[in-house]
Amino acid sequence: MAKKLAAVAGMKRAALVAAGKVKADVVLKNASYLDVFSAELRTGDIAICGRQIAGIGDYEGETEYDFTGKVVTPGLIDAHVHIESTQLSPEEFASLAVPRGTTLVIADPHEIVNVCSLEGAEYIRRAAGRTPLEVKLMLPSCVPATPFETSGANLNSADTARALTGTRFFGLGEMMNYPAVAAGDEEVLAKLLAAKHADKIIDGHAPTMSGKALNAYCVSGARTDHECATAAEAEEKVMRGMYVLLREGSASHDLTNLVPAVNDKNFRRFALCTDDRHADDLAREGHMDHVLRTAVKAGIKGELAVVMCTLNAAECYGIKEKGAVAPGYDADLAVFDDLEHFNCTAVFKRGKCVAENGKKLFSDRGSVPVAVKNTVRVAPVTPDKFTIKLKGSRARVIGLRRNTLVTQKLVEEVESRDGDVCLEGSDLLRLAVVERHFASGRMGLGLVKGYGLKGGAAATTVSHDSHNIIVIGDNKEDMAAAVEELKNIGGGMTLVRGGKAQSVPLDIAGLMSSAPAAKHVELSAKLYEAAREAGVYEGIEPFMTLSFLALAVIPELRLTDRGLFDVNDFCITSLDAE
Amino acid sequence: MAKKLAAVAGMKRAALVAAGKVKADVVLKNASYLDVFSAELRTGDIAICGRQIAGIGDYEGETEYDFTGKVVTPGLIDAHVHIESTQLSPEEFASLAVPRGTTLVIADPHEIVNVCSLEGAEYIRRAAGRTPLEVKLMLPSCVPATPFETSGANLNSADTARALTGTRFFGLGEMMNYPAVAAGDEEVLAKLLAAKHADKIIDGHAPTMSGKALNAYCVSGARTDHECATAAEAEEKVMRGMYVLLREGSASHDLTNLVPAVNDKNFRRFALCTDDRHADDLAREGHMDHVLRTAVKAGIKGELAVVMCTLNAAECYGIKEKGAVAPGYDADLAVFDDLEHFNCTAVFKRGKCVAENGKKLFSDRGSVPVAVKNTVRVAPVTPDKFTIKLKGSRARVIGLRRNTLVTQKLVEEVESRDGDVCLEGSDLLRLAVVERHFASGRMGLGLVKGYGLKGGAAATTVSHDSHNIIVIGDNKEDMAAAVEELKNIGGGMTLVRGGKAQSVPLDIAGLMSSAPAAKHVELSAKLYEAAREAGVYEGIEPFMTLSFLALAVIPELRLTDRGLFDVNDFCITSLDAE
Repeated sequence: MAKKLAAVAGMKRAALVAAGKVKADVVLKNASYLDVFSAELRTGDIAICGRQIAGIGDYEGETEYDFTGKVVTPGLIDAHVHIESTQLSPEEFASLAVPRGTTLVIADPHEIVNVCSLEGAEYIRRAAGRTPLEVKLMLPSCVPATPFETSGANLNSADTARALTGTRFFGLGEMMNYPAVAAGDEEVLAKLLAAKHADKIIDGHAPTMSGKALNAYCVSGARTDHECATAAEAEEKVMRGMYVLLREGSASHDLTNLVPAVNDKNFRRFALCTDDRHADDLAREGHMDHVLRTAVKAGIKGELAVVMCTLNAAECYGIKEKGAVAPGYDADLAVFDDLEHFNCTAVFKRGKCVAENGKKLFSDRGSVPVAVKNTVRVAPVTPDKFTIKLKGSRARVIGLRRNTLVTQKLVEEVESRDGDVCLEGSDLLRLAVVERHFASGRMGLGLVKGYGLKGGAAATTVSHDSHNIIVIGDNKEDMAAAVEELKNIGGGMTLVRGGKAQSVPLDIAGLMSSAPAAKHVELSAKLYEAAREAGVYEGIEPFMTLSFLALAVIPELRLTDRGLFDVNDFCITSLDAE
Repeated sequence: MAKKLAAVAGMKRAALVAAGKVKADVVLKNASYLDVFSAELRTGDIAICGRQIAGIGDYEGETEYDFTGKVVTPGLIDAHVHIESTQLSPEEFASLAVPRGTTLVIADPHEIVNVCSLEGAEYIRRAAGRTPLEVKLMLPSCVPATPFETSGANLNSADTARALTGTRFFGLGEMMNYPAVAAGDEEVLAKLLAAKHADKIIDGHAPTMSGKALNAYCVSGARTDHECATAAEAEEKVMRGMYVLLREGSASHDLTNLVPAVNDKNFRRFALCTDDRHADDLAREGHMDHVLRTAVKAGIKGELAVVMCTLNAAECYGIKEKGAVAPGYDADLAVFDDLEHFNCTAVFKRGKCVAENGKKLFSDRGSVPVAVKNTVRVAPVTPDKFTIKLKGSRARVIGLRRNTLVTQKLVEEVESRDGDVCLEGSDLLRLAVVERHFASGRMGLGLVKGYGLKGGAAATTVSHDSHNIIVIGDNKEDMAAAVEELKNIGGGMTLVRGGKAQSVPLDIAGLMSSAPAAKHVELSAKLYEAAREAGVYEGIEPFMTLSFLALAVIPELRLTDRGLFDVNDFCITSLDAE
């Protein structure tokens, strides 16, 4: 009852502030603001009462900001992001994203849940909760991504239904097993149905899907897609009822290609996202401000780009109180120099100024809970474990290609000596995926061509999507030492040469660093340089390429802890070739 | 568990139908269809599985319809309607609306709830549930409309909060007490808060509201408005975050005036509605098909008009599964000759063909429950009760004006004789509002100028919003007989001349007829003619004008069962003038 009375009193105060009968808490003065409903710049004071926008017009406030010459927009929304891909803690991600104008992200904690199960998602929720960055969490739908690998968690349809009750999860994360949907796989459909029954949105992930298969995917409930590569693909998906999220990430730069699909009639069905964005890119180029600049460069009017990044995203995800500068909406606001360069002057979250001139005005960092620490659990690994015994002289080899994550399925002549391959003088390296969740000792072994490392080993605990340890090298001793180093530092990336390790710790689930962003970016840059010096070819990202060599859903040949995986045939295959 | 398995099986079948692996139940062939996401006509078979659209492309079905040359659109949505205003039962309303292409209405049962409380809403829900017309019910927010009248029900904020839990009501109906919102009235705000807490939409009603008062109204949660009279008003409301419903009713023809407010950027924020539409107009001109024709005549492209009437309405009300021809959406479809004349060839509701060539293919009529019958409860009324005793010779008189519902507050010289007014030879008539819910015997008396009736009395149980009996006449005997007649027929409209009554029964709550639509339209037309013959002036709607003389929120002078009401001063006033 007391709570109800307080709520009525709060509403009354907001109404009286709006009506001009009571002074506002905060007023933003002398700026223009973006009316997202008409995609027009307009003028008027913006009066804030508590966490809401109360009115627009001529207002006085307890605190007044003079934003002469600036443009106020709704806080920016990243419609789809994996925070883990930044390799930063949620607090550090917020410290980079919020001062750039981002106030809300739809985050799929797919990576950390593959390591730490739902406790990983809970960690992100709590850590982000200490910052002004609002994070709506999607429940990962594909844990593990395939049955051909060992992840730290396994969420079946019953777990999914359970987790989707209540408010912990905002929706079901990208359903990557799109072939199973079109094939009518009941376990996969049961997950989608659980989301429908919970009245929650389902994110899609349907690269190149088209025609009847796309119809099947849509009828099953997927309502967004961020994997379009061409304008025609985007147009078809919009036509079939999907929201298309134009992606501008660190590795995937789809936005510019997709701009021709956007027109006056259908633009409400597009939002913007980063999906995966690295810490250094965030620090150097920015977050959604960078995506907006990219959109404007690609020919989208600044006003429309912001509408995509605010109202459209809010509508897509059914978030009624976000995405507009209008009375009754949450006072999540970004203040920019203009809608071309998007230099961010100030950011307000729920009525509070949380960043000014690129500097955050918050400093809440919590400790990292045990549940996501010390997640590297490996059985002892000695150099001989990396021995590769072939039956003959021909082996299946993962062929790297420059500037793409797609690999080639090669068959190469490989010399052997004393019951092990002998790779000296070739462009081949050993690759291993070491199960690291249950210390089972399980390892998959393979061969890679085209990486370029000499005299050492590189390893990381970031290896999609199960995040076992993946290690590559030209000698078994350094490979064993690299695994040992990752175990000792609780996960991360390492380069070992002659037994000496240079590392970047990713002590949160083996995926993210608890260090400040600047420190992490610096260490990463140095490690990158060292890897180049050690011979990793240009056109190959030393650690990111490695991270994706375990992802069993990108063609053609991959390695998991269960062995070499032929993505085209979708089965485990042998190193020995005919 | 069995239910869950069945649901998964259903989803699987839909996916396989979409994928082209299983035959569809129904396929619409050879038509073009409206892609509402791009407002473009496209081609492709529409495959239906159960109640959903499964896919668009090249499909085969158990049943196939050849719609060569036709255009398939989503089923039309009336975004705001009072079904009671048709004076038809929900079944008969559906029988006129569905064959015209309407498959969903957002209905505010404000009239019947003022008579029968929530049982009135329940009646509408059940009656509509027997038809293919889907009715989303809003909970009336203003029962009674003012404290200055006696209605059959009283819903305070606690009742409102209770009624809004669960799924019975889809949202809170139009908040007409907009001045109270801007003034911070706590009881009114508590109703709005109850809707917010229940996560339900709030319909607005804010004629001419602007500036800070509009801000206050919006911050309190109202998200739609159907009362705009000018394009500028509509633009301001859209700017402040409201959806504007372009109204084309029987009495209010706002749509054409508002079209200049609509542009490519903001058109997503407009939907279409009828608000109040009479049976004869429905039968003669149509329902939303007529609104669409009107929109096209006013210059809106047919494709865009349909988008307003489908996707926009669905988005406005957060109805995710409606408003598009796309896989996963409900198979609510209308088939038209073209998007200019909107001649309706066929209508599908949840995959079933429910109307063809203007003929309904359903015939479900239920009995009318006791709760909404026999609602006319009046104490005996004898002619002497209509005696008007003035203190002097000057009286306040309700002055009718032609072609508007706004009245004038007149002061006239009135002759009296034997303790009663003597109106012979003047243009004045007696008016009375007789409380009819509790047989309290309470009556309000007044004088009207400009109605024109000679030698009789006209009366109706439809009198906004409390729906007491309102009776007008030049002799007390016919007035008493008219009240008696309405009591005997359970409510309706009647014209009594020399003791002889001609009536139209409105036996459902005194508001709606249980007769077939054609019969009701015929009776109503005859009564209308009779009223004209009895002298009612051109420019005055014999019964509708009467119905609105009790509505205490339209300027300037009204009559309730509690007496003469001065709308400008918002208080009861005296018949005696200075």
